[in-house]
Amino acid sequence: MTRICDNHQMHCNSPTWILCALCALVPVSCGAAPKNMGEILASSAPSDWRTPDPGNTLYLELSTGRVVIELAPQFAPLHVANIRKLVRAGYFDGLAVIRLQDNYVAQWGDAEGTRALPAGVGDVAAEFDAAISPSMHFTPLPDKDGYAPQVGFTDGFPSARNEQLHLTWLAHCYGMVGVGRDENPKSSGAELYAVIGHAPRHLDRNVALVGRIVKGVELLSSLPRGKGELGFYTKVESPLPIRAVRIAADVPIAERSNLEILRTDTPLFTALVESRRNRPEPWFKVQAGNIELCNVPLPVREP
Amino acid sequence: MTRICDNHQMHCNSPTWILCALCALVPVSCGAAPKNMGEILASSAPSDWRTPDPGNTLYLELSTGRVVIELAPQFAPLHVANIRKLVRAGYFDGLAVIRLQDNYVAQWGDAEGTRALPAGVGDVAAEFDAAISPSMHFTPLPDKDGYAPQVGFTDGFPSARNEQLHLTWLAHCYGMVGVGRDENPKSSGAELYAVIGHAPRHLDRNVALVGRIVKGVELLSSLPRGKGELGFYTKVESPLPIRAVRIAADVPIAERSNLEILRTDTPLFTALVESRRNRPEPWFKVQAGNIELCNVPLPVREP
Repeated sequence: MTRICDNHQMHCNSPTWILCALCALVPVSCGAAPKNMGEILASSAPSDWRTPDPGNTLYLELSTGRVVIELAPQFAPLHVANIRKLVRAGYFDGLAVIRLQDNYVAQWGDAEGTRALPAGVGDVAAEFDAAISPSMHFTPLPDKDGYAPQVGFTDGFPSARNEQLHLTWLAHCYGMVGVGRDENPKSSGAELYAVIGHAPRHLDRNVALVGRIVKGVELLSSLPRGKGELGFYTKVESPLPIRAVRIAADVPIAERSNLEILRTDTPLFTALVESRRNRPEPWFKVQAGNIELCNVPLPVREP
Repeated sequence: MTRICDNHQMHCNSPTWILCALCALVPVSCGAAPKNMGEILASSAPSDWRTPDPGNTLYLELSTGRVVIELAPQFAPLHVANIRKLVRAGYFDGLAVIRLQDNYVAQWGDAEGTRALPAGVGDVAAEFDAAISPSMHFTPLPDKDGYAPQVGFTDGFPSARNEQLHLTWLAHCYGMVGVGRDENPKSSGAELYAVIGHAPRHLDRNVALVGRIVKGVELLSSLPRGKGELGFYTKVESPLPIRAVRIAADVPIAERSNLEILRTDTPLFTALVESRRNRPEPWFKVQAGNIELCNVPLPVREP
């Protein structure tokens, strides 16, 4: 069966300089062939992985399964605080996925706009970017980006930076979760969307991004596309209902998703990025020598 | 209902220099606000559109509808010739979509690998790139690309160039169709795939791309993801069967899809690109000043 290769091959046809670049970065014996992603992950130590904070983890419970979202309060503290209140008030329970626009976004919330927000939740200030903080662990990518002066990963999230302005923001890669809004730059967090297509990076700094789907994005991306304008479901369609949205910390431990996410501030992650910039698998006849922010995989495992 | 804006708004908050840049490019009266994509398309002339050649158009007929693929023989003449022979021999009819890997590709062909290729069809030489030809109408993008010295559109297809080497190749954007292969760089065209996720540009120059889906990509992108390795469907899953693949020229005119595709070698298309680099809709608070190759929309209409 003819395949388009992914990350399951073993040998190496990289030129020597790539090998040497890798040797400087990862604890492998020099002279060995560059490792592919599977081999790099197989060589990882427990300290290369982290367990997401249950207080910053959302479960979007659908009849088809659970979508797990890691929140990013360091980038959007006001919206994340609102979302926690909305979840704990049961606001999302019984609402639905209301929009599926091909190669763009899945959106969920109140199609009718009639459900009242719980007390204490309203529009908050735009959180399109955040001040760079010393508590953020940023790993820059080596390649240039067209949309920002610098891009890389901040504590597991694809992000961009303008160091002159001391600003950072999350980037609209596949699986990122943001806050729908109208022309007012303020928003509440009651309408959320996830990117399910090619990264719409032009939305960066125009929306508050609040997190990333770390498991189950395919439960959204494989939904039927909405027939209405902008992919909204029309009245004759049957949007997938949301059974509940919960914060993992509020769920009994036995019912939680047991996930570990690869850290992005380690030499192993830097080696993984290099293994994707220049793919060592022999299937690849030409190596890209480049990787775009939204093409870097962010592995998640169930220990 | 809170929306993430797309292309349906009317006003403008662009700085004046963008306005002036646009005035040089499109036949609008100077002093008018920059147009958004919808307005630019509304102002198009019949000559801004083209009808795809029925001899270079494939219909992938599924029980859920028709996927229309425009072939690019100028980039992969040997594979396109093979695909025409395969189609006319009925090779694909009754086969199935055999792989759906989330955020990557849909692939169709012979899961069992037992169907014989028709007489006269076998592996042909790799067509990972092509010589730049004066018959190609190339419109470069103004922004830099990380994967190639130059990118833009060649006769409607996203493409890249290395002018020093006199080479051009198609780019793995959403909806592009390519030829699955094993480690041998040769391939026949009997296994085809379409990109249904973030552009895997690292595949550029590693696979023969043969065309682009111009209608119906959502019939593939919304399919259930395969549970096997690399998203292949396992034996317990039910892959979507292919009723038939046909060349439009072989289909009675009354049964053909009547499509027009926006030309990419016109001042109107250049204005459209600019309207996406700097979105004039007031929903956008920050303009990107940039567009990545695979974020440029390629409008198709049914007259």
